Amino acid sequence: MTTTILNPRRTIAELQELRALTSDENGAQRVAWTPTWGKARDWFKAKVAELPVETHQDEAGNLWATLQGKSDQTLLIGGHLDSVPNGGWLDGCLNVLAGLEVLRRLAAEGEPPVTVRLVDWADEEGARFGHSLLGSSAVSGSLQPAAAAELRDREGIRLADATQNYGVDIYRANTAGKELRNAAAYLELHIEQGPVLESLQVPLGAVIGTCGVERHSINFTGQAAHAGSTPMNQRRDALGAAAKLALEVREIAKRNRGVCTCGRIAIKPNIPTAVVGECDITLDQRHVEAEPLAAMLAEAQAASARFAQEENVTMNWSQIWRIHPIPFHPTLIDLCAEAIMETCGQVHRLPSGPLHDAAEVARAGIPTVMLFVQSLRGLSHAKEEDTKLEHLAQSVIALDKLTNKTIAWLLTQPKQNSHE
Amino acid sequence: MTTTILNPRRTIAELQELRALTSDENGAQRVAWTPTWGKARDWFKAKVAELPVETHQDEAGNLWATLQGKSDQTLLIGGHLDSVPNGGWLDGCLNVLAGLEVLRRLAAEGEPPVTVRLVDWADEEGARFGHSLLGSSAVSGSLQPAAAAELRDREGIRLADATQNYGVDIYRANTAGKELRNAAAYLELHIEQGPVLESLQVPLGAVIGTCGVERHSINFTGQAAHAGSTPMNQRRDALGAAAKLALEVREIAKRNRGVCTCGRIAIKPNIPTAVVGECDITLDQRHVEAEPLAAMLAEAQAASARFAQEENVTMNWSQIWRIHPIPFHPTLIDLCAEAIMETCGQVHRLPSGPLHDAAEVARAGIPTVMLFVQSLRGLSHAKEEDTKLEHLAQSVIALDKLTNKTIAWLLTQPKQNSHE
Repeated sequence: MTTTILNPRRTIAELQELRALTSDENGAQRVAWTPTWGKARDWFKAKVAELPVETHQDEAGNLWATLQGKSDQTLLIGGHLDSVPNGGWLDGCLNVLAGLEVLRRLAAEGEPPVTVRLVDWADEEGARFGHSLLGSSAVSGSLQPAAAAELRDREGIRLADATQNYGVDIYRANTAGKELRNAAAYLELHIEQGPVLESLQVPLGAVIGTCGVERHSINFTGQAAHAGSTPMNQRRDALGAAAKLALEVREIAKRNRGVCTCGRIAIKPNIPTAVVGECDITLDQRHVEAEPLAAMLAEAQAASARFAQEENVTMNWSQIWRIHPIPFHPTLIDLCAEAIMETCGQVHRLPSGPLHDAAEVARAGIPTVMLFVQSLRGLSHAKEEDTKLEHLAQSVIALDKLTNKTIAWLLTQPKQNSHE
Repeated sequence: MTTTILNPRRTIAELQELRALTSDENGAQRVAWTPTWGKARDWFKAKVAELPVETHQDEAGNLWATLQGKSDQTLLIGGHLDSVPNGGWLDGCLNVLAGLEVLRRLAAEGEPPVTVRLVDWADEEGARFGHSLLGSSAVSGSLQPAAAAELRDREGIRLADATQNYGVDIYRANTAGKELRNAAAYLELHIEQGPVLESLQVPLGAVIGTCGVERHSINFTGQAAHAGSTPMNQRRDALGAAAKLALEVREIAKRNRGVCTCGRIAIKPNIPTAVVGECDITLDQRHVEAEPLAAMLAEAQAASARFAQEENVTMNWSQIWRIHPIPFHPTLIDLCAEAIMETCGQVHRLPSGPLHDAAEVARAGIPTVMLFVQSLRGLSHAKEEDTKLEHLAQSVIALDKLTNKTIAWLLTQPKQNSHE
């Protein structure tokens, strides 16, 4: 019965329907806390309303659809309908709509042995106010509501005010943590947003965890000087130090099998006829393991100090953001790999460089795993974001198989009381 | 008699007087075609009016004071009262006021053997409309009036309209070329605006010419990609190519004994979490000789092509501006060195990296030389610009000696007809 009910083509059709409803010529426009996002949610609620599920929005704006099972022990499947501005047609909503299809299949089979809940997280992207994973971090308890409340968008509107239009009192958002009561496992399907699976010619991957991130801004200050009258050996060239660092962090990343990126740069006075007197450059370092992540940071700090000395400039590091690596659940990773193997005959295990709501759920202690589907050319957060339709269909099938495997695993587990 | 009349202390007092009249707490504000510049000129005209000279403004806005001599053969001494916004107290006006002091000394001695003219060039800095050497380029004939007319300041005001308030019809500016009739030599004193003389502990330098300049913008285009999901070996990092170039041009400069500067940089998308997809970087190369300047350009182009290939990015060069090296007159350089040696017992010969009005006069075929006085810490175009008072006094004395030597040299020369 399972195989006849699950309809991956319907998921693809619904993705296309959502795209037509909420995109313009520049891409998806489902930015959280905007009317287009509200439209996407209304459309989604109408779909969910056809199923025998209880639906409500929690205090953080997350939308929950609950298919009550024989036991209160709960399997969560999550995604997010919100997008970045000018975004792609798959990022976030594939997860939600594939989860909807799995829920349909389960509901058609009658009462499942455990409770299964589909969650559409609110504001995963943080595109308007700059706070990613807003809804899931409220549920996990890592959100700081008072600080988030004061964030403002480009028009100066406060997050606290914008969310109120969607029924969310941000100061009370963390009370949504009660939604994790009885949660025993969390599954999330997502496009890879990178080129690894495509380069390996593998449709699907089992995600072993999310990378830890060290994000810093480094200031080098030398002396602005006339490009024509200042001999090379009398310069204090801030760009020289920054250029050396931008190149060295790539070697550091390769040595430690992580990634390092200098993505933002600002220089002064920034005119063709002046030696650069001051340079601010950002460094984003990621690794799935804590120890090499710390090593990459230490190596970059040592290198930058050396370059500052060579260039006779001062150096100052300031932390922008950091998060520890979050490993996913070993058994769920194995089950995910099995489901993928049964779906397409090959599997690759890989870390996620980007963060996802799954990281917040895992931080809250819920056994978690993610399933990646190949992204074409590694592109995301752009209208060019795409995935082959056959891979999309395979991803829905694999998520469905993983759901069954996870339910079977939960039935073998002693009921956990940690979130009751 | 010469030594008793020339009063370098008066020049310093007048520089201080002009500073008090036309500076604020941020520095000098004598931007050309503004009321403060007009105020500086009115103040200067009153000084000149005390001398037995004919004074007029030419069609390009340059102010000429002519001390008629026994012959029409003419020695020119030049400078500029205009400054950059928030400029220093010496750049440009030292030349004018030292020239005024020399003119006073000559006038006190009675009719000189040749005619001597002091010129206050209009808009050397190009600070408001972006066109440097405006007045002197009109006189030399290199100005393109129709193009200059359409330049606009930050408020959108056209250069052609702004100059009309100061009696200049920019479309007729090149007719000022007639001012070079009978011109047989041109002398200009200037602060060095660099650190070379200070580092050598030499007060004054004889300038051998102005550097040629090759100024280009180089675009590297790779692929913006997620900093977390894109492995190091799958990146097309535009910043990587630009960083390599920024470092390599410094080696190219050292090998060729010139200067190379990457002073402006713009990257996209310029966010901490994205690999740089596109980078525009400027390269300014200067050398006093044409051959090594061409070599520096060729080496930079070859290096950038190599880096583009290594980083799998495209490369595109576009020229911003170029000018050939302009050598000064060998005899006048020798006379300048003699005058300096007699003034302070030591001399250094050096090229000028920055351009000056002298370059335009030399381009017009007039034998030209410049005399540099030490700048403290190499700073200029800033209120911190400064020179020791004893060095300022020495510079006035050396300019005076150079004037005498040049007049004596002119008297040995057959009269030139090229500019009659």
